[in-house]
Amino acid sequence: MKKFSIAPVYAHCDLPCGVYDPDQARIEAESVHGINQKYDGLNQEDKWRAVMIKEQRLELVKHHLWVIWTDYAKPEHVEATPDLHDLFWRATKQAGQAKKSTDTSDSQKLLDLIAEVSEWFESTK
Amino acid sequence: MKKFSIAPVYAHCDLPCGVYDPDQARIEAESVHGINQKYDGLNQEDKWRAVMIKEQRLELVKHHLWVIWTDYAKPEHVEATPDLHDLFWRATKQAGQAKKSTDTSDSQKLLDLIAEVSEWFESTK
Amino acid sequence: MKKFSIAPVYAHCDLPCGVYDPDQARIEAESVHGINQKYDGLNQEDKWRAVMIKEQRLELVKHHLWVIWTDYAKPEHVEATPDLHDLFWRATKQAGQAKKSTDTSDSQKLLDLIAEVSEWFESTK
Amino acid sequence: MKKFSIAPVYAHCDLPCGVYDPDQARIEAESVHGINQKYDGLNQEDKWRAVMIKEQRLELVKHHLWVIWTDYAKPEHVEATPDLHDLFWRATKQAGQAKKSTDTSDSQKLLDLIAEVSEWFESTK
Amino acid sequence: MKKFSIAPVYAHCDLPCGVYDPDQARIEAESVHGINQKYDGLNQEDKWRAVMIKEQRLELVKHHLWVIWTDYAKPEHVEATPDLHDLFWRATKQAGQAKKSTDTSDSQKLLDLIAEVSEWFESTK
Amino acid sequence: MKKFSIAPVYAHCDLPCGVYDPDQARIEAESVHGINQKYDGLNQEDKWRAVMIKEQRLELVKHHLWVIWTDYAKPEHVEATPDLHDLFWRATKQAGQAKKSTDTSDSQKLLDLIAEVSEWFESTK
Repeated sequence: MKKFSIAPVYAHCDLPCGVYDPDQARIEAESVHGINQKYDGLNQEDKWRAVMIKEQRLELVKHHLWVIWTDYAKPEHVEATPDLHDLFWRATKQAGQAKKSTDTSDSQKLLDLIAEVSEWFESTK
Repeated sequence: MKKFSIAPVYAHCDLPCGVYDPDQARIEAESVHGINQKYDGLNQEDKWRAVMIKEQRLELVKHHLWVIWTDYAKPEHVEATPDLHDLFWRATKQAGQAKKSTDTSDSQKLLDLIAEVSEWFESTK
Repeated sequence: MKKFSIAPVYAHCDLPCGVYDPDQARIEAESVHGINQKYDGLNQEDKWRAVMIKEQRLELVKHHLWVIWTDYAKPEHVEATPDLHDLFWRATKQAGQAKKSTDTSDSQKLLDLIAEVSEWFESTK
Repeated sequence: MKKFSIAPVYAHCDLPCGVYDPDQARIEAESVHGINQKYDGLNQEDKWRAVMIKEQRLELVKHHLWVIWTDYAKPEHVEATPDLHDLFWRATKQAGQAKKSTDTSDSQKLLDLIAEVSEWFESTK
Repeated sequence: MKKFSIAPVYAHCDLPCGVYDPDQARIEAESVHGINQKYDGLNQEDKWRAVMIKEQRLELVKHHLWVIWTDYAKPEHVEATPDLHDLFWRATKQAGQAKKSTDTSDSQKLLDLIAEVSEWFESTK
Repeated sequence: MKKFSIAPVYAHCDLPCGVYDPDQARIEAESVHGINQKYDGLNQEDKWRAVMIKEQRLELVKHHLWVIWTDYAKPEHVEATPDLHDLFWRATKQAGQAKKSTDTSDSQKLLDLIAEVSEWFESTK
């Protein structure tokens, strides 16, 4: 396709809308953190619901991070930030880890990694 | 459930995580606006994709706004802001309207209504 | 948009298929009610499943009601029925409330509110 | 599981809520029929949207019919109505066929087959 | 539609891509089987997650099998294999049954039925 | 959970079911390739549907690859295969690229990259 003739494989976006925002991942992760903070005080059935809702939110965290990694990040970004792949890998793995726990330290660690992603993201603007 | 004993019908949240953010609607609407700005320059097949992607994003805009209206807004908010229902109704209707058009004035009108929602939302904090 | 020049903002439907039916919400709510009626007799794992399935069905109830409110209801309806917004708000809030409980009185209250929506809906035909 | 000890394989429902309704399939199919009736008068972009929306609705038609076939229909139903499998097979195939066409005769044929399903369904009550 | 003029109702595929594969159902069912094998050793919250994840995977199993039954299977297949409908019915019913249990014998029975589907599928190539 | 005590952040799976299979990505990509091979011969409306179906299938390709990258790949894999991150990045980017084209060379390139992923995957068994 002509439009991408200079870097045909590394198109920067599935459709060139130009809108990416790590806040999408952060908001979902904050919701998980909020759930974890209240988890011990929930009744039995709300605990089941909390675990289920966390699972969905964390899947969204993973999705939003994967999209930035695959669709927004370009070869020049990876060149400039050699551990970029590893940052996204650790962040999405931590989202998976947070599914297995209701510990606020796990959701906090996830928020910290998303903050690192945001910092990098802002540096590319 | 004790927590809701005073106003059992108007529970403020489906699970008390306390995280709501009109930015979720705004980010999706900005993506639609970005698509509209580039629409005329797209090739035929990307136009089809643009219409399809807009449809999905605008459905998300509606969903995020509905959630704030139904789950976050409480009776005291409605008392304090009598046209609150109408604001959300016009905003979600405008999201539907924006599905039918690739005109930036339609996506801009949507962004303006989401900004009104955000302003109200901030005022409740 | 010219096409809707008589009622430009308040197009009555995202695509003019003309098909809306509160029965979609009612059927999902009846399923939740049926689950609540059998809940106490379920074994442990089916209780977890019941809570999860209720959550999904009630999300569908909310969705179907929101669609009627945003897409079907027109300004003349709101003028004729001033508490229309409030009816939909209470009905969708009750769907959220029913997620937090396996009490048949909560699912019955939801069915009653959907019946009110249906009655209004029929009156507009 | 005791509850299903007599016919362990042919459990009549994934969770015993007891609520099934062919109207769910019918409402989606009517929406497709409504779209087909208006299709020729739509502008270019709404035609794309119509094809996309039809696709989703018809997938829902298939899903709702499959659920009744697999979850509601019991061995005694199949014994009593030997061509029951074939009826559901033709109905779901017709839903697939209706994706490929915007001809009202295709959506009408689908509605007719769903009416046959409904008639059988009512006969089992 | 001309393209399907010889067998207008029994189009073999919703879009003629020609790709079907019972391995999609098998992989999801193996995941359920793997969960069942480890179920007793999981902690309480991972048990809830296991039940929820099983539910989703088994819904995918049903979907993949239904697609092969409705979209791939053609009238000549049914003529050649008179119990084809029944095989798919038992297989999808067993997927529903496996939602209600964490017993490896239930997931094994499902895998066996999917193996029968695969055997038939291969025989049609 | 004992299993993760040595490398708590790098859990190898969101739930220890142990089932991963690059064939899930391959089957979806083959479907896209099949569509591209027939694309020029489709009528206008089936072309729209083809573009829409390709979009969904390619999103599934991305998802299945991301899951293997984030959930299955472990630190020892990355150590042993230093360009592993880059392989998954190029493969998921190519899936995005294939959304923008109906050229069989784009879907073939995607299939080739998935074959590389499979080869690596098999080497870890």
